[in-house]
This record gives sequence, structure tokens and C-alpha cells, in this order.
Amino acid sequence: MTFEVTILGSNSAIPANGRHPTSQVLNFNERLFLIDCGEGTQMQFNRYKIRSGKIDHIFISHLHGDHFFGLIGLITSYNLNHRTAPLHVYGPAGIDQIINLQLQFCSRGLDYELVFHIFEPQNGLVIFEDKNMVVTSLEMKHRIVCSGFIFTEKFTEFNIRKEKIQEYNIPFEMIGSIKKGADLTLADGRIIPNAELTLPLPKARSYAFCTDTLYNEDLLPYLSGVNLLYHEATFDKARVDRALETFHSTSAQAAQIAQKAQVKKLIIGHFSSRYFEQDLDSLLLEAQEHFVDTALALEGYTFAVER
Amino acid sequence: MTFEVTILGSNSAIPANGRHPTSQVLNFNERLFLIDCGEGTQMQFNRYKIRSGKIDHIFISHLHGDHFFGLIGLITSYNLNHRTAPLHVYGPAGIDQIINLQLQFCSRGLDYELVFHIFEPQNGLVIFEDKNMVVTSLEMKHRIVCSGFIFTEKFTEFNIRKEKIQEYNIPFEMIGSIKKGADLTLADGRIIPNAELTLPLPKARSYAFCTDTLYNEDLLPYLSGVNLLYHEATFDKARVDRALETFHSTSAQAAQIAQKAQVKKLIIGHFSSRYFEQDLDSLLLEAQEHFVDTALALEGYTFAVER
Repeated sequence: MTFEVTILGSNSAIPANGRHPTSQVLNFNERLFLIDCGEGTQMQFNRYKIRSGKIDHIFISHLHGDHFFGLIGLITSYNLNHRTAPLHVYGPAGIDQIINLQLQFCSRGLDYELVFHIFEPQNGLVIFEDKNMVVTSLEMKHRIVCSGFIFTEKFTEFNIRKEKIQEYNIPFEMIGSIKKGADLTLADGRIIPNAELTLPLPKARSYAFCTDTLYNEDLLPYLSGVNLLYHEATFDKARVDRALETFHSTSAQAAQIAQKAQVKKLIIGHFSSRYFEQDLDSLLLEAQEHFVDTALALEGYTFAVER
Repeated sequence: MTFEVTILGSNSAIPANGRHPTSQVLNFNERLFLIDCGEGTQMQFNRYKIRSGKIDHIFISHLHGDHFFGLIGLITSYNLNHRTAPLHVYGPAGIDQIINLQLQFCSRGLDYELVFHIFEPQNGLVIFEDKNMVVTSLEMKHRIVCSGFIFTEKFTEFNIRKEKIQEYNIPFEMIGSIKKGADLTLADGRIIPNAELTLPLPKARSYAFCTDTLYNEDLLPYLSGVNLLYHEATFDKARVDRALETFHSTSAQAAQIAQKAQVKKLIIGHFSSRYFEQDLDSLLLEAQEHFVDTALALEGYTFAVER
């Protein structure tokens, strides 16, 4: 089952050095989830051939412009492109006011339903859940209210061991309840426990998005063992004071979080405009001193969330 | 004296086919005036090496998103780039609310002065004036309140004929008043009229920006003889009914306005997303049937406002 993230923007604050403000698109089994939506995100969809009609859920981390200025354009473009499916936006208080005020002036109303889900960031808070996926919030330590997100796949059905269907001659009408965890009662009264009939669930994969934040070890219990971690890395280690002052992290700090949480792989991004393309490798090397399996969040790159 | 316009965006409604929403930058004697600011305008500055620090005046035609969604990003990027000069925004009621609401949430306040000049579009209304330039409004016929703009150079001083300085031995301290139009009184009481001392003023050049509008002959007296006219041309002539329905123009209609107003040159833009790059030539040909000196508003192209 596809579970991968594509980087659409990886610069901090302003578009610069050919990089765009923050946006990522998560493909989970061909459903797309958008994470942040900086200015120009809809142009990045065109560039990287993102099938944006498949996005029904958008997660906005906070109200610094480089994380949401592209949202109003996307919402109105969907309308111009005759979207009918509801669109759900998860974000901090204010995002609804900002979008609605602009719609009030610039549009004759949307022809699809736009639903805001306003939440207060809190570690572990479930903000979205359906039968395949759960999204929880992570409380970032930033200058304004700011949330990270963990996307975790979810299993609501067991896979039945095929040989058991034959062995116990399981009737078709019982398959559904066994997949849901029921035991099997045979004609002679014997009870076969579900665990014998089904395969153990695989470990659920997860992707964590830690955007604008100070170095924060409070996150470790929540990040523990995630398969893929994105952590902002605005500065190099020589600028650790500047990171502190602006409530951001260095690439070394991002990697220390990855190392301490024992994640499988780390992506670093949200680079300061002071770094040109050729400077990014030094941020990467400084991260790799702490956590080897680190990659740069380069735009257009897709990272699989591997089991 | 430089007087030229560079096209930054020429698509209508949504970014598509590699084209961006509306934005143009007018260079008048190395001062820049921004006309509309669709999403991604600040990225277009980077692409076309526009020295955006030289922009102190931004004119917003109307509150359809493809004409202003890039403004908030530009305003906050100026702040992040330590702008100190005041920035003046001319536009319809609502633009101030929209920008201020976003600033309230996403910024610790601007370190420079942002001044809104809200106006009701009206043909001939002066909305900006200084010693070199006057900007008047044009009332567009669109679905919502919408203004076009005419930028006209202005002469506040005559050039003195050099030979007259010698002939009448004009003292240095009188040069200023003669440049302002004063006559010269000689020692013997004779009065030399200003017209003999100075060169006739050249005809002031003007650039007219006619954005989203129905075909509207009411504009002709105001457009009469302008040196360079931009007129929207969203559709080809087969879609004249669609133009009417959406309060837009065809390229043939744009050219009819140019022809009837006897402008010097026409640029057409704001192309519907239905037209791919290779389709634009047919819009151009349909315009040229009415007005030969027509050009496509291709992004990155600069058009001089020629005397």
C-alpha cells in the first residue's frame, strides 16, 4: 500500500534560491493529504504532476504566511475547476476567518463544501481518523501556536490465513466477522480463537511532520520509532543561537531528535534563505554526525514511508 | 526616460499552462509601480530579476483572487527583508481588511509603514499623483467593483533653450522660475515671454491597463491616443457569448477598443486556461484583423511606452 511524501516547498520564510515555502503532499493508498500550503503550492502541483483533485484533507501547522498563503488560491481554484467533493481543512483558530473573509469579497460562494476543523495543538491529540489512517497533533515550540502532525496507518481488519478457511470449512458469511476479530464457533461447539485464524497485524507505519519548532525533547515519546520523520532544520550548527532566538532548530538538533527517538529515517527542510543550493550539503553533513540516514527535503523528491 | 511595462502573469482565474495570474510591473524612470499581484508574483520577481525594493506603489484592480492573492506574501516578505520605506497600496474597499486580518495573525507587526488608499473606480479619477506621474482610474464593467488604470507621465518643468541663456544673459537665480513657466523681465523693462525661452513640452506618454471587463466603449474618450494599451482578452471571438456571460472580452473586442481609441500599440492578456501556448496565436490574429500593432502579453516580455 503506497505511503509516501513528496516535498513541494522547503524554504523558510520567503521564496528564495529557487525554493518555495513549505508544502508537502502525502500519498496514502492513492488518497492525498496536503501538509501546509505556502504561496505557489498550486503551481507546484502543476510542476510535479500532483493529482490535486485527490486531496480532501489539508493540514495547516500554523499561521505564519510561508505555511498557508497558498491555501486561499487553492480553495478558489478548486471551485473554478468545478470541485464537488467536500474539502476539510485542519488548522489553528484564525484560518477559518482568514479564508472566509477573502471568499466573502472575491467569490460568489463555493460550489463545494469547505469544512474547517479548528484545534489546539497538543501532543497525541487525534485530529483526523478514518478506517485507514489516524492523524495526531504534536505541539511545536514556536513563536505562535503551531502544530506538527503524525500520520499513522491503521488496520481495522485482520487478514485470514487462507489454509484455515479450508481446514475449518469457514462459511462465507462468517468471513467478515472473523476479519473484525471474532472467534469461530464450530458445529461441534469447539471455539477456534481468532488469533489462530488470522495473520498478526504488521506494525503500522507512520510519518511525522515536525515543522517550525525549537529543539524539544518532549516530542520523543510521540516520535519514538516512527518510520519517517521530517524535522525542520532552518540553520546550521554555528547559528544555534539564532535558532533559539527565532524558535527554530539547527540540522544537528533535528538529527539529535531523530537519533533519540530512534526513527527509521530523517528528512530535513525549511532551510533559511541564507543557504544556497550548494550550502545545503553542509547542513546535511552536520545532521549525519548524529543520525546517518538523513536526507535533504529537496523539492520534487518523494520519500517512501518504509516498513 | 525609461517608461516600460514587464508582464509577470497573463493567465486568467487560475495558474495554468505555465502561465501565472495577473501581475505587471511598470518601470518609470527606474521607479517601479506594481499593477495587480496574483499568487506567485514575488517568485516572478526572482525569475525576471525585478528589483522589487524599488516598488513603493501597488495598484490592485479588484478582489478576484487572481489579481491579489500574492499581495500578502509580498507585504510580509518585504518585512522579512527589512524594508523600511512606506508601501502604498491602492485598491477597492476590502483589500485593507483582508491584509490586516492576516497580518494580525501571522506577524508581529510590520517594521515599515503600510498605507492603504481605498477608492471607488471612476473614469478619470486621479488616484495617485506626484511630480512625474499621474495615475487615473478607469471603471471596468466586471462582476465586482473593478478598476483599470492609466499611468501618464507629467512635466512640471520646461527645458530652457540653451542659446537663450546666452542671448539674454539670464542670471542663474532666474533659471528655476523660468523652468516653472515665468517670463523674463530684462534690465531695460522688456518682457520676454516664457514660450520664447523654453522648448515646447513633449506629448506626455501614457500606459493604460484595462483588466477584467466587458467590451465598453465608454472608455474610449479616456483611452484616446494612449501610447500603450493593455486590454484583457480572455476568449477568442467564437466565445463572445461566454465573454458576455463572465464579464470578459474577446481578443477581437480588445482590438476594436484599441482601434477606436486610436492607441499606438496594444497588448492582450488574461488568457483563459483553455488556451495552450500554441493557441494564443489565433487570439492574436483575431485581434490583428482590427488592430495590427497588437502583441501577446507573454510573461517576462517588456514593452516600451514609446512616444
